[in-house]
Amino acid sequence: MAKRNAFYAQSGGVTAVINATACGLIETARSSRKMGKVFAGRNGIIGALREELIDTSRESRQAIAGLRSTPGGAFGSCRYRLANPDRDLSEYVRLIDVFRAHDIGYFFYNGGGDSQDTAHKISQIGSRLNYPVISIGIPKTVDNDLPFTDSCPGFGSVAKYVAVSVREAALDVASMCESSTKVFIMEVMGRHAGWIAASGGLAKETPSGPPHIILFPEIPFDRKDFLGKVSRTVDKQGYCVIVVSEGARYADGTFLADAGTTDAFGHIQLGGVAPTLASMISTELGYKYHWAVADYLQRSARHIASATDVEQAYAVGKAAVEFALAGKSAVMPIIVRKSSKPYRWTIGEVPLSKVANVEKSMPRGFITRDGYGITAKAREYLEPLIQGEAYPVYHGGLPRYVELENRLVRKKLPPFPAAG
Amino acid sequence: MAKRNAFYAQSGGVTAVINATACGLIETARSSRKMGKVFAGRNGIIGALREELIDTSRESRQAIAGLRSTPGGAFGSCRYRLANPDRDLSEYVRLIDVFRAHDIGYFFYNGGGDSQDTAHKISQIGSRLNYPVISIGIPKTVDNDLPFTDSCPGFGSVAKYVAVSVREAALDVASMCESSTKVFIMEVMGRHAGWIAASGGLAKETPSGPPHIILFPEIPFDRKDFLGKVSRTVDKQGYCVIVVSEGARYADGTFLADAGTTDAFGHIQLGGVAPTLASMISTELGYKYHWAVADYLQRSARHIASATDVEQAYAVGKAAVEFALAGKSAVMPIIVRKSSKPYRWTIGEVPLSKVANVEKSMPRGFITRDGYGITAKAREYLEPLIQGEAYPVYHGGLPRYVELENRLVRKKLPPFPAAG
Repeated sequence: MAKRNAFYAQSGGVTAVINATACGLIETARSSRKMGKVFAGRNGIIGALREELIDTSRESRQAIAGLRSTPGGAFGSCRYRLANPDRDLSEYVRLIDVFRAHDIGYFFYNGGGDSQDTAHKISQIGSRLNYPVISIGIPKTVDNDLPFTDSCPGFGSVAKYVAVSVREAALDVASMCESSTKVFIMEVMGRHAGWIAASGGLAKETPSGPPHIILFPEIPFDRKDFLGKVSRTVDKQGYCVIVVSEGARYADGTFLADAGTTDAFGHIQLGGVAPTLASMISTELGYKYHWAVADYLQRSARHIASATDVEQAYAVGKAAVEFALAGKSAVMPIIVRKSSKPYRWTIGEVPLSKVANVEKSMPRGFITRDGYGITAKAREYLEPLIQGEAYPVYHGGLPRYVELENRLVRKKLPPFPAAG
Repeated sequence: MAKRNAFYAQSGGVTAVINATACGLIETARSSRKMGKVFAGRNGIIGALREELIDTSRESRQAIAGLRSTPGGAFGSCRYRLANPDRDLSEYVRLIDVFRAHDIGYFFYNGGGDSQDTAHKISQIGSRLNYPVISIGIPKTVDNDLPFTDSCPGFGSVAKYVAVSVREAALDVASMCESSTKVFIMEVMGRHAGWIAASGGLAKETPSGPPHIILFPEIPFDRKDFLGKVSRTVDKQGYCVIVVSEGARYADGTFLADAGTTDAFGHIQLGGVAPTLASMISTELGYKYHWAVADYLQRSARHIASATDVEQAYAVGKAAVEFALAGKSAVMPIIVRKSSKPYRWTIGEVPLSKVANVEKSMPRGFITRDGYGITAKAREYLEPLIQGEAYPVYHGGLPRYVELENRLVRKKLPPFPAAG
């Protein structure tokens, strides 16, 4: 049997290390000599629907190696969700048509929970449409909410960025608090779970040291209690450092960030839980404040990526190819923790049928009883994930990140209208 | 004559490298064997007024060496401005009393323009009060607005942080723009001048690459023109990356950040030019956006400090002691650029009388004609300042920053009420 080609797509929000996964996958496929070409979807799965397939075999070995230290999504990603095949099978039929036209026998989908669900469906529908495809889901999400895998590639690097940034900014505030800024607020990602906010807690070196307050989506925000805690912290420590998840919310579920702020034109101003808290603190307590919103900086900060995370991101890409070549389908490689101290891990696997639509939430035991900090258990879990530095190469003072040529394969099919 | 002691104070907003200056100063004073103890003001000049003098001779050699790679202000800083001595001499009299009580013959003031003015006044008033003090100003400011010195210690590291962050976040947006975020806005410091915003321009690799728009305080904001530029950029490039100075303003001088946003309680929400622009773009053009406000993260980011900046920060601290021991007073060490390609610099000096109350603004020739980018001239000036990485030591995944013991010298004087 001739070697069949592979299709790889990046899905959802990109990370500092999703390209390291692509690197592991492509390098392993190339060196196996058992797989044909790896085609990457231009802008993710949309690229498959549009038959916009990037021929990665035309990229140099150096360029592919450079993916290991380049943030963002080198082939483009998307937030496109395929229609439910029980209601409308047309997109799946199109995917199979494209796969058939380009002799694609392997489907690799690199993303979060939705993507694992899609990868699972493709593994089923290929057979149904008489074109069996080996379908492998590859974990990726800064939200760290995929089940079974001990952690999600992408998360460790955000965690490291947040912990480093909080430690640094805290030193700044501590220096200024006598006569100036008393409260510093850093807003971090994590709409549904507090994993990223929790990682800010790693910056804490002493029980009374910064960060003094972490606000998690898991703990209903109590304005009065919070303001009391801020006030007591400033009284005792002279300043207060707060890490807040973008998903922090009141008991009734309202996000703090949606507190009804309007701009000069009367439009509702979305986002910005940090400025919302700052305004609250200023109004009620009168403290001078500063706030930061890291936004994309946190998930693209390859310059301060966790070496552990980079290695794991590469490993799941590599494992995906190995699974596929071993004839496994409908599985996802996972990180299995063997011990925390010293940290040891290996790659395992889990059937996609078990992964789809299951979200891993942060255990309540990771948050201190008062709701404002992380426990020793959380620290034991988080610390290994930020270990090691994996600096990119610099040129002229800036990281040298690769840009691929991204040449498309010639199309063989008529356009598919639905994908634009 | 017995060796006289020295007083050193950090002033104004701290930086990623102001402690490197302290390190250069203390190490040079120690190894000279010609200077007594170096006392540091606890929380800056306030510490002198309160007679809260940190005895740096009680810190270990390792701790002092660690200052070279620790951000923030290790002794505390302040934004306290002494009263005008022509109207009220009492604070200056107090300073001289404290200096006399502790046999302080050298005054080192590490800060921006105001601090240089204070250092100048102290050099004059000491003699007037019959207690001559050698007074040296040491440059420090992320704003890069001190005259005569080619650049200001602290600026190069912010510039590097901003350039790196913009490059990374731009890769993220570029990956997502087909189906999601089209506009990314990063707000940076620089209330009065666009030096920091300009450094974001270093991330640009090709004429049409990101960042596509930089908004400077020097160029009046034209809403219609700006929105047109955003729209054209998204049409052509698929996305638009914007770097905006916190000091961006309309032609009438109104800051964009003061555009009258109110929160849910009707209070004016200060700050946040990035969310203000985001809201404007969303309302007028309908693009999905993300925005980041780096705030203190940018000036405390020792993890990505410029090696050039660290070296220069150390060098001005060292030079300050050398000047003082050579009997020079009322001077400030400066960075003198000898060539840009290759970058060569040396330490020079300038009389404080010339420095006081002069602000260096960014030349118009550094900004492109359309007002949205930087010129080759700006690049030639900025590029050397971000050269080299000077990574701190990591332990357990986080930078190991020193915390000094900061033991105070026993007080000899009655309290000075005005300083609280």
